[in-house]
Amino acid sequence: MKIEAVDFFYLSMPEVTDAGDGSQDALVVRVAAGGLVGWGECEASPLVSIAAFVTPMSHGACKPVSAVVLGETLEGPADIARLAARVELECMDLLQAAHTFSGIEMALWDLLGRRFDTPVYQLLGYKQAYPKLPYASQLFGDTPEETRAGCRAARDKGFRAVKCGWGPFGRGSLADDRDHLQAAREGLGKEGTLLIDAGQIFIENVDAAAARLPMLAEAGAVWLEEPFLGGAYEAYAALGRQGGSVRIAGGEASHNFHMARQLIDYGKVSYIQIDCGRIGGIAPAKRVADYAARHGVTYVNHTFTSHLALSASLQPYAGLKDHVICEYPFTPKSVAWDMTANHILPDANGEVTLPQAPGLGITVSEAGMAKYLVDVEISAKGKLLYRTSRP
Amino acid sequence: MKIEAVDFFYLSMPEVTDAGDGSQDALVVRVAAGGLVGWGECEASPLVSIAAFVTPMSHGACKPVSAVVLGETLEGPADIARLAARVELECMDLLQAAHTFSGIEMALWDLLGRRFDTPVYQLLGYKQAYPKLPYASQLFGDTPEETRAGCRAARDKGFRAVKCGWGPFGRGSLADDRDHLQAAREGLGKEGTLLIDAGQIFIENVDAAAARLPMLAEAGAVWLEEPFLGGAYEAYAALGRQGGSVRIAGGEASHNFHMARQLIDYGKVSYIQIDCGRIGGIAPAKRVADYAARHGVTYVNHTFTSHLALSASLQPYAGLKDHVICEYPFTPKSVAWDMTANHILPDANGEVTLPQAPGLGITVSEAGMAKYLVDVEISAKGKLLYRTSRP
Repeated sequence: MKIEAVDFFYLSMPEVTDAGDGSQDALVVRVAAGGLVGWGECEASPLVSIAAFVTPMSHGACKPVSAVVLGETLEGPADIARLAARVELECMDLLQAAHTFSGIEMALWDLLGRRFDTPVYQLLGYKQAYPKLPYASQLFGDTPEETRAGCRAARDKGFRAVKCGWGPFGRGSLADDRDHLQAAREGLGKEGTLLIDAGQIFIENVDAAAARLPMLAEAGAVWLEEPFLGGAYEAYAALGRQGGSVRIAGGEASHNFHMARQLIDYGKVSYIQIDCGRIGGIAPAKRVADYAARHGVTYVNHTFTSHLALSASLQPYAGLKDHVICEYPFTPKSVAWDMTANHILPDANGEVTLPQAPGLGITVSEAGMAKYLVDVEISAKGKLLYRTSRP
Repeated sequence: MKIEAVDFFYLSMPEVTDAGDGSQDALVVRVAAGGLVGWGECEASPLVSIAAFVTPMSHGACKPVSAVVLGETLEGPADIARLAARVELECMDLLQAAHTFSGIEMALWDLLGRRFDTPVYQLLGYKQAYPKLPYASQLFGDTPEETRAGCRAARDKGFRAVKCGWGPFGRGSLADDRDHLQAAREGLGKEGTLLIDAGQIFIENVDAAAARLPMLAEAGAVWLEEPFLGGAYEAYAALGRQGGSVRIAGGEASHNFHMARQLIDYGKVSYIQIDCGRIGGIAPAKRVADYAARHGVTYVNHTFTSHLALSASLQPYAGLKDHVICEYPFTPKSVAWDMTANHILPDANGEVTLPQAPGLGITVSEAGMAKYLVDVEISAKGKLLYRTSRP
């Protein structure tokens, strides 16, 4: 097969707010080869990721992603690895390229899975996809009452685990944070798994993060996620040494395998969280999962958008039976829900399992996407480089 | 002062080839505040960096860079630090933001320097700018004869140091590489400082890089630069342990302070090379220079484009007397030369010193830029987001 076309669809809610809610827009990718199509999704900033596909070349190590992908051969997983390696060298100086290629890479796996009538996790070498325990991933409320209500809502829907993140946490007093943590625990109930996401708010200030450890332990939080900038490994490691029962999680910012490995090796995190829409797709995420498993670190997906992204992000560790927990967008905006025709729903045990279907097992909804399609036009050097088309 | 306007000018040679020559295009930034202007330059992929300035917001941690910068107060260096910290949090999920902000940050320093009638290096806390020994930075030739001629040309122009990089190196046989290294030494002469840049060609294959160490030592190469992907710290450290007289250099891929620090801490490089057009501008580069000096690592600028970028990249270590060597674009394309009215030229000793002039001390040439100006238009959501204007 030849990769004949790569098309991008920028979807957005009519209004985008400055809440830390990553489900407000999406960049969906369709790859066509050999009469088949595959679908993927890039995480964050659709217009910029489109630009990284269509931009004119700056030099031999700063090509647009299109120059590496279009017209190339796709017969099996080795071709995906070959293209990924070429992106690393030929798009070396184009920072955004990793995010752009991530969605394409997912779509290539989806397409291969459809060609071979096989779920992607089996193409990755797993025999079986084990059930995962989804945590309802949501933002802290503006008030403790809202936080309590959010956690209660998740519990009422059968979730046994909840993550609260961003919002006011770390921005006010210690007492404010403690009130939110207590409220979260009350809403979730005594038995539930409580996870907390600081959204990098402590930058690299270990003392400020450590001041929250006692109240996190008091609320029975399993992990504190992303207390610091993604690359501040020394701070992660220093906090981990003081963490006691509260473990440190992070990794979503990784835009290549090495960044995730280093957060394990030097940041000493206990949970490594990977977004397949950022790290370069499914194969580098699988490499992280293998590395984590060998080093006693638990792999977790990072997903705050659609169920297409959710499926892609679960594939890399589908076969790791002991890596049980998974992020599950709890209150996504309608664009993230409507863009797929099927969804990955919790079963009676409150667990989720990947679709037993070819590729990513997710059918996109072209009608659902059309409602949110954003018009974009990019031209340079006298050429039209991109114009939105309907899926 | 309020930051009233940030304007981008995408310049390009009429033809851009796939040679590893980063001087074929440029993205120049002009910032206006308080009746003054400052100028900076982003490294690589102009269209994508423009898109990261104008793109619609995706969510509260994925804003366009414009949302952080426009209308903000600029009175002194603390304001630059404040804006940089906001970019890290508010543009967290927009990967390209670091490259976009880099050029803006340079322009903010240039503007402050003009306001206070002070060179930027003095605003950074240095009393004096020491002379640096420039190395003529160029690509390997396609043949050893071309490599020899390139090094000879640099020597004839008074350069006492030369770097050859990219091109065929590491792509053919060991004998081919040895021929190029010997030719480089012959062209440069016995006394000259020879530096070699592998352009990440060995990915993370330590053995392949190590196989070149004996011939590098034979040719008297001082360093081997970027043998591996920017983040493959284990490979850097492993090669360094075998390096003997050949030291390892790297760091140009760093898009924040932490990445550079980690290449020092874990990659164990002897030379840390920072591009101010990528790392977020001049202040994070200064922080790297301070860190390097404290840890016995030599700081070197990475510059392959214009003399505006060259001045910006020399400021962060201008006052470090013992960090002597500097990268100097030897055969830049005409766009990189013509865009500034003045240049930083070697003196009779073959050394270069920063201009004793306010800001970056470089005057852009609006006429020089106009010749290379690329027409770009970006629109989304029914709005024109960017259209090229004349400087």
